[in-house]
Amino acid sequence: MLRIAVLGVGRIGRMHAENIAAHPRATLAGVFDVHMPAAVDISEKLGVPRFDSADAVFASTDVDAVLIATSTATHADLIEQAVAARKPALCEKPIDLSLDRVNACATRIAGSNVPVMLGFVRRFDAGHSALRQAVKTGKIGDLHQVVITSRDPGMAPDAYIEVSGGIFRDMTIHDFDLARFILDEKVAEVSATGSRLVDPGLMERCNDYDTVTVVLKTASGKQAIINNSRRAVYGYDQRVEAFGSGGMAISENHTLNNLRLYTDSHTDQGAPLMNFFIERYGDAFAAEIGAFVDAIEQNRPPAVNFEDGRQALILAEAAIRSIAEGRTVNTSEIG
Amino acid sequence: MLRIAVLGVGRIGRMHAENIAAHPRATLAGVFDVHMPAAVDISEKLGVPRFDSADAVFASTDVDAVLIATSTATHADLIEQAVAARKPALCEKPIDLSLDRVNACATRIAGSNVPVMLGFVRRFDAGHSALRQAVKTGKIGDLHQVVITSRDPGMAPDAYIEVSGGIFRDMTIHDFDLARFILDEKVAEVSATGSRLVDPGLMERCNDYDTVTVVLKTASGKQAIINNSRRAVYGYDQRVEAFGSGGMAISENHTLNNLRLYTDSHTDQGAPLMNFFIERYGDAFAAEIGAFVDAIEQNRPPAVNFEDGRQALILAEAAIRSIAEGRTVNTSEIG
Amino acid sequence: MLRIAVLGVGRIGRMHAENIAAHPRATLAGVFDVHMPAAVDISEKLGVPRFDSADAVFASTDVDAVLIATSTATHADLIEQAVAARKPALCEKPIDLSLDRVNACATRIAGSNVPVMLGFVRRFDAGHSALRQAVKTGKIGDLHQVVITSRDPGMAPDAYIEVSGGIFRDMTIHDFDLARFILDEKVAEVSATGSRLVDPGLMERCNDYDTVTVVLKTASGKQAIINNSRRAVYGYDQRVEAFGSGGMAISENHTLNNLRLYTDSHTDQGAPLMNFFIERYGDAFAAEIGAFVDAIEQNRPPAVNFEDGRQALILAEAAIRSIAEGRTVNTSEIG
Amino acid sequence: MLRIAVLGVGRIGRMHAENIAAHPRATLAGVFDVHMPAAVDISEKLGVPRFDSADAVFASTDVDAVLIATSTATHADLIEQAVAARKPALCEKPIDLSLDRVNACATRIAGSNVPVMLGFVRRFDAGHSALRQAVKTGKIGDLHQVVITSRDPGMAPDAYIEVSGGIFRDMTIHDFDLARFILDEKVAEVSATGSRLVDPGLMERCNDYDTVTVVLKTASGKQAIINNSRRAVYGYDQRVEAFGSGGMAISENHTLNNLRLYTDSHTDQGAPLMNFFIERYGDAFAAEIGAFVDAIEQNRPPAVNFEDGRQALILAEAAIRSIAEGRTVNTSEIG
Repeated sequence: MLRIAVLGVGRIGRMHAENIAAHPRATLAGVFDVHMPAAVDISEKLGVPRFDSADAVFASTDVDAVLIATSTATHADLIEQAVAARKPALCEKPIDLSLDRVNACATRIAGSNVPVMLGFVRRFDAGHSALRQAVKTGKIGDLHQVVITSRDPGMAPDAYIEVSGGIFRDMTIHDFDLARFILDEKVAEVSATGSRLVDPGLMERCNDYDTVTVVLKTASGKQAIINNSRRAVYGYDQRVEAFGSGGMAISENHTLNNLRLYTDSHTDQGAPLMNFFIERYGDAFAAEIGAFVDAIEQNRPPAVNFEDGRQALILAEAAIRSIAEGRTVNTSEIG
Repeated sequence: MLRIAVLGVGRIGRMHAENIAAHPRATLAGVFDVHMPAAVDISEKLGVPRFDSADAVFASTDVDAVLIATSTATHADLIEQAVAARKPALCEKPIDLSLDRVNACATRIAGSNVPVMLGFVRRFDAGHSALRQAVKTGKIGDLHQVVITSRDPGMAPDAYIEVSGGIFRDMTIHDFDLARFILDEKVAEVSATGSRLVDPGLMERCNDYDTVTVVLKTASGKQAIINNSRRAVYGYDQRVEAFGSGGMAISENHTLNNLRLYTDSHTDQGAPLMNFFIERYGDAFAAEIGAFVDAIEQNRPPAVNFEDGRQALILAEAAIRSIAEGRTVNTSEIG
Repeated sequence: MLRIAVLGVGRIGRMHAENIAAHPRATLAGVFDVHMPAAVDISEKLGVPRFDSADAVFASTDVDAVLIATSTATHADLIEQAVAARKPALCEKPIDLSLDRVNACATRIAGSNVPVMLGFVRRFDAGHSALRQAVKTGKIGDLHQVVITSRDPGMAPDAYIEVSGGIFRDMTIHDFDLARFILDEKVAEVSATGSRLVDPGLMERCNDYDTVTVVLKTASGKQAIINNSRRAVYGYDQRVEAFGSGGMAISENHTLNNLRLYTDSHTDQGAPLMNFFIERYGDAFAAEIGAFVDAIEQNRPPAVNFEDGRQALILAEAAIRSIAEGRTVNTSEIG
Repeated sequence: MLRIAVLGVGRIGRMHAENIAAHPRATLAGVFDVHMPAAVDISEKLGVPRFDSADAVFASTDVDAVLIATSTATHADLIEQAVAARKPALCEKPIDLSLDRVNACATRIAGSNVPVMLGFVRRFDAGHSALRQAVKTGKIGDLHQVVITSRDPGMAPDAYIEVSGGIFRDMTIHDFDLARFILDEKVAEVSATGSRLVDPGLMERCNDYDTVTVVLKTASGKQAIINNSRRAVYGYDQRVEAFGSGGMAISENHTLNNLRLYTDSHTDQGAPLMNFFIERYGDAFAAEIGAFVDAIEQNRPPAVNFEDGRQALILAEAAIRSIAEGRTVNTSEIG
């Protein structure tokens, strides 16, 4: 049994803690949170130890690995500490909002063979990963275009948006990774378009966008199109399409159940979309823990690594520059 | 925590054992099986005691309730023992293949207030139960017709079929219960049609049918149409439609994932259907355990009771008589 | 060019007249209706002659063939006149409400080689006929079950219902023919269930039913299940499913367009169903005219013949008797 | 009856001729084609006059209006002639491959009140136009994003591609118009990405692209994303999505029929997509003729006018420049 401690038990950290507890080959070694009541609550609920500090976690001989779900600003530090303590780490995205900090972190952990896995959960979704598999096994021939539709069900609180680092580093980052996962070839060019349509005032104030389109192109010409909105009133819209020389695969949305309703005012109406990421990607989050456990048990590199986290951030930086300068940006300008 | 022991740990009993172990307010108190290796295997895997006999389970003060997943012939006896031991029981369907035995069991447990719940798992499926809810809350007006399509992905082994009690008592029994659940009114008339199309030789030998249609009618005229096949090559086909004065609700099939594929030989192709009941009704089986725990904790009658099991068997008997005599059978002739 | 006259230019006759006028290898030779203004209106609109009587039509050397869309009571007489005049006829269903009258008509026209085609339009629907083709070419293996869902969008006027001959002869007759078309084997047994749920008072008065289920079985055991309602508030519901040893084919409903709508109150909502038969089966009605013209031009028997009309009526009679006597009726008892 | 002559009776001109002939308030006044046999064939088939020259058409007092379906290079000249002859014209897209020529034509016909309609047929598709209507009536709130997927079923012949003017002027032009139709606000910025993936050699030779993505933005920030491929092996892929503050509308693909197939190798497989534009947009082409006739009869400006044709070409020019210069192009730089 792999003993995993969870650092940070806000909404997402709690879910990870429960998934670890439920995993057949892992145990929850304990939890830590700077916000004491959150840590107390989950430690009592699940009957596991509560650590007094991150240091205590890294020092503990009862902890084999860590899951980092603290606030973004602490991710890079904790990754470095985990590597120093030789404890494999699964870290929530993004590594950091600053590419410089990410690069510094990369330098510091270079050469270590302690596994660091990034929490790009969408790779573990059954539909998205079946799509990736269909592409990989040639079911749609050579890949030509990827179209990712990714819209949140509602605007996050202003306070969150203000420190989020902007939509590209905070939200699109997932889609950048998903695009890289499916393209399976280095992105060469990035072209982005941003609008302020959902909450123009807030966006103006934060110099941010709530409605964006990004077009990525690889050296061989493969294209990926990402479109994001901070608010889709019909729910969490998560679709991926891969188009190639031999066909097309689409990973469709998930609904709460498979009921269809017909009345005198409408026909063939679907159930509501699963809301929000904790529900929609619930199975994927569990599969992500499984992949982390597998990688450590089998001594294999993790499915999503630190460099994947860095590359996604490079695409975010390129998108920001593309809008600022009204031009296509080459990723070599950033990295 | 409710301590539940599992009697019978074949394929379905094992799954129940794991669901109990995973339930937040229940623990697996131990397992018993006449087939020793099965019991040893699961008791070791889940780290729970193995009982030497059913009597030992009923005598144990460490067991609050039991789940009965043994062979059909033992169900009625074990229910009676559970009631005598004042341990609430969740019993797999059917209660017994003989209505006389079921009636005798009913007499013996009458007056006791020990909860006995029947394992009609489909009631707990998210789609089917959303459909039931839509009917109950008037979303489709007054109910007029229910159409249940229920086809197994493949023929069970001959040895199983031979002792199954026939398709109506073994397979349609689930659909009879689902029809009763949705109709929410006593079934008055039963009319059945049977054919031998999948394996005519075996069916002839067992005086059984592999392809059947049953039409139920309540006193007020509501109709339910059930169609079954022992083998659908495209997978486990499980659909329910409710039609009423104000509309229609359909609970659709479940696929492995939400991928759609388009190639030069086909368009818009869905993923395979979930196979078989353990996968398709996986969430429903877990919800069923939850409902059992809830009923006991909250001292409420179980969602599906002994009488539901008896009524479903009465419909099976009526269907058999309907075919034998080529006529519509009134359920009052049976019960 | 085949010169076709239309007898009876009510709603359905008018549509036939327009389809004939639009057919590339047919012309509308003229129209006749006992209701003068209807005939005047359409003859002026399409610029074709108006005949003063049915006799005049049959006597005319400018008429090669006739389409009979008059009231049901006149169908058999007009078919006999057409055959006597050696003019091929396409007659709307049903031939007559009385099987005796149909049998008499059959006797009178026997031996003649004048083509008489019955207007069972659903055979010409693209989806239903692709389903029939899939069955015929073995795409779903050996056929086991056919499930026909056929619900009208709303109750016809009381006056119509009162003289309709009852739901089986008036409405189910289309489904009986469609079932025969797909089964492609003589129906041996009929079992029917009827309810009065949409308009119980009217149904009681007419000794009719508004909600029915009919199960047909062939000698080899193939089953067809028909379910009808006189009123589906969500529109004209027309679906056909064929299930066999090698798979399943479903001919789905038609919507006004392919728009799907998502809002804060619903997801993935379809457009309204096409209403009513003139719209839903519009292409099929045109294809039916084409098949009539083809048969005559190529001197081949029509795709749907008089005997098909008679057999469908036999199934209606069997269904009526099945309900009256509460038993499965063998078609040999009727025919 | 409006008497319309057709200039150019290649594949698309023939279809227009037949649609005119079938329209209840229009007649086909005759046809002209520089390729004599084509004109003879259709004039004989439909029994209409054949003109010897375009001049003869414009001079004829038996011609009220013209439909121009000749080769692109002749469109502007013929529009000018039609206006000079005071005959309303419906002209196939594009007006010309040269924006200068289009501007010159605009100048010459300015001030005339002779209706000139452009053949952007997709506006008349039932699904696309229902989507436009949903946007217009506020069903999805304020419009934020339009996503147009438009892929041809197969590469046109090399000879066609070579003189097509490039993918943006030839193929995307339809999508530019559709985007403008739905956005209903002037496009301010254009950003395009092009790849050579379907036939790299040919594309290299023609300095053209076969796989493109274009992002349009209006002054208020509305975005439209167009993705095109010259070859989708699964058929003619034509989808439009509109996303807004209050929801989403999607106009889905059209299939040959509504059959779904399930076998041991696949589940829920759709029928082939309608191929190609003549089939897929068949109803839309007929509706386009209807709109032309309506506009003339009711003395209203046509639904799609010359300026719409010019604006679509401006977007094509902007897309070409965007790729050439690797930057976002403002439409004011072009127009």
